Amino acid sequence: MRTTILYSPGDVRFEARDEPKILAPTDAILRLSATCVCGSDLWPYRGLQPVTQPQAMGHEYCGIVEEVGSAVKTVKPGQFVVGSFCISDNTCPICKAGYPSSCIHREFMTGAQAPMARVPLADGTLVATRELPSDDLIPGLLATSDVFGTGWFAADAANVRPGMTVAVVGDGAVGLCAVLSAKQMGAERIIAMSRHETRQRIARDFGATDIVTERGADGIARIKELTKGLGADAVLECVGTQESMQQALGATRPGGYVSFVGVPHGVQLDGQGLFFAQVHLHGGPAPVRRYLPELIDLVLERKVDPGKVFDLLLPLDQVAEAYRAMDERRAIKTLLRP
Amino acid sequence: MRTTILYSPGDVRFEARDEPKILAPTDAILRLSATCVCGSDLWPYRGLQPVTQPQAMGHEYCGIVEEVGSAVKTVKPGQFVVGSFCISDNTCPICKAGYPSSCIHREFMTGAQAPMARVPLADGTLVATRELPSDDLIPGLLATSDVFGTGWFAADAANVRPGMTVAVVGDGAVGLCAVLSAKQMGAERIIAMSRHETRQRIARDFGATDIVTERGADGIARIKELTKGLGADAVLECVGTQESMQQALGATRPGGYVSFVGVPHGVQLDGQGLFFAQVHLHGGPAPVRRYLPELIDLVLERKVDPGKVFDLLLPLDQVAEAYRAMDERRAIKTLLRP
Repeated sequence: MRTTILYSPGDVRFEARDEPKILAPTDAILRLSATCVCGSDLWPYRGLQPVTQPQAMGHEYCGIVEEVGSAVKTVKPGQFVVGSFCISDNTCPICKAGYPSSCIHREFMTGAQAPMARVPLADGTLVATRELPSDDLIPGLLATSDVFGTGWFAADAANVRPGMTVAVVGDGAVGLCAVLSAKQMGAERIIAMSRHETRQRIARDFGATDIVTERGADGIARIKELTKGLGADAVLECVGTQESMQQALGATRPGGYVSFVGVPHGVQLDGQGLFFAQVHLHGGPAPVRRYLPELIDLVLERKVDPGKVFDLLLPLDQVAEAYRAMDERRAIKTLLRP
Repeated sequence: MRTTILYSPGDVRFEARDEPKILAPTDAILRLSATCVCGSDLWPYRGLQPVTQPQAMGHEYCGIVEEVGSAVKTVKPGQFVVGSFCISDNTCPICKAGYPSSCIHREFMTGAQAPMARVPLADGTLVATRELPSDDLIPGLLATSDVFGTGWFAADAANVRPGMTVAVVGDGAVGLCAVLSAKQMGAERIIAMSRHETRQRIARDFGATDIVTERGADGIARIKELTKGLGADAVLECVGTQESMQQALGATRPGGYVSFVGVPHGVQLDGQGLFFAQVHLHGGPAPVRRYLPELIDLVLERKVDPGKVFDLLLPLDQVAEAYRAMDERRAIKTLLRP
């Protein structure tokens, strides 16, 4: 088979490799129905994160189980499954406490921009659907694997509750899914920060009631203006830069909630500023496995369609173009089908 | 009357000043039953916070109402009252959301190391008892004004719940009160980090089940050892230094809670470290006014005695010695009686 390898910033190749094999009795091998490029894949692609050796890319996936190791009990060949981008045993005390993304046996999924992939700790990582989903649901189901699960965590970690005013920093796929999630959790007012018309349209479609195009101090001032000078009850930071984090902290009312769900790059927080902002702060790699059963059901029952974040569909062998389109912001998110 | 003025680091004087007067119709004038020196007073006293002009010191207080402004409705002359170190209106949306310490009209109390003090926004700041308390309850009631209220916030902000394992960083009066608060909230195991025998004794008396004397990486390792390698469910940071914050973050399990209640001095947090620690972080000036009615009752009903943190009692005119004793760690906290 051929698979996606990042050699150095900007150099993505689709190259021949052996098909994955069961290495541990807890592994599963999947034949992927779809995969995609993640915003976080752009960090090394853009050289903002070092690439020390060729890397097999891809951590978002869903598909049909091809083979399982001898210890796997909850999924079997022929089933359709979605898995988290974080591998977890789902039985350790940290998983039990709701944080499979910090499982004591955590690994990060790799090599999913390929026709087939090996998933370690299959029982703890994968969730099977009762029947094979219809093809038009594949994008939505794929989204639960990372961006929808991460947007959901952004809303959950910021304690979004019915009636709240919520602001979302970031109009990438995760930010848009955070809007969708806040809406599902009953937010009354959802302020999306976005300058891009296509993204604004999806944000509104997902439930945003207000769009703020300003950034920095102006962005904060605009959100305060929309919230009687106080700031939003919850701000969901879905980017991971110093600017986006400052934006989020500055736009939250005292006692409010800030979540951050993109890996921070070069972010430093001043303790005293955080103290007097008096916000609740929670973030990290999204515990997607915890949410998967609920999110898969929402998609299967067609209550939400997070698959709308995929605005470019390409065959897998055009993966290099998928990266380029996202890097140049021609696409929000590219769906790849083997 | 004479009152406490800090002229420069180490230079505390007890000097003649006019008695306070009603300046606004929302003010109250109190004749103080007791006051004290706060750990936070030591920052400027030690020169770790600039002293640009002579400062009237003291923000912890309880006493008898002497006079009220024409707009004051909830307290009246002759009543015994306790007030928060943060002045608040207790009616604004931030107060209503539970954060009077970030009230839109917030001021910080000053000038309470004196026989009399003016309290602005008396209705929003003070809580009166039904009758005059007996004299032996004064230290406990005074503690609710700041250190007990702040320790309570440390436990509340770290979401302490029955059955949890809680660690407390800092063995000052606030840290000890945080132990007491965690115990009241049902923590099963309370690990106090302390190297001082007197403080360890009070910590145990307040409910600590374990004492950890190690600091830094060793302190973190010891707490992990006590918690099956995972870290505590909640860590209450009651100091405000880079070291204490790192201690707290390192000793918390993923998905756990870190509170920080001392004004951070020189603290910088790395965003990526915080992301992968995956803790909940919440802190700030304690919303003492929210807790006062409950804490005053706990003291009046003799269910707790946070007054035990006062291990040195001096007449108010020896306030300079009160500072010295705390600076030299000869006293945990000094009670001053006019």
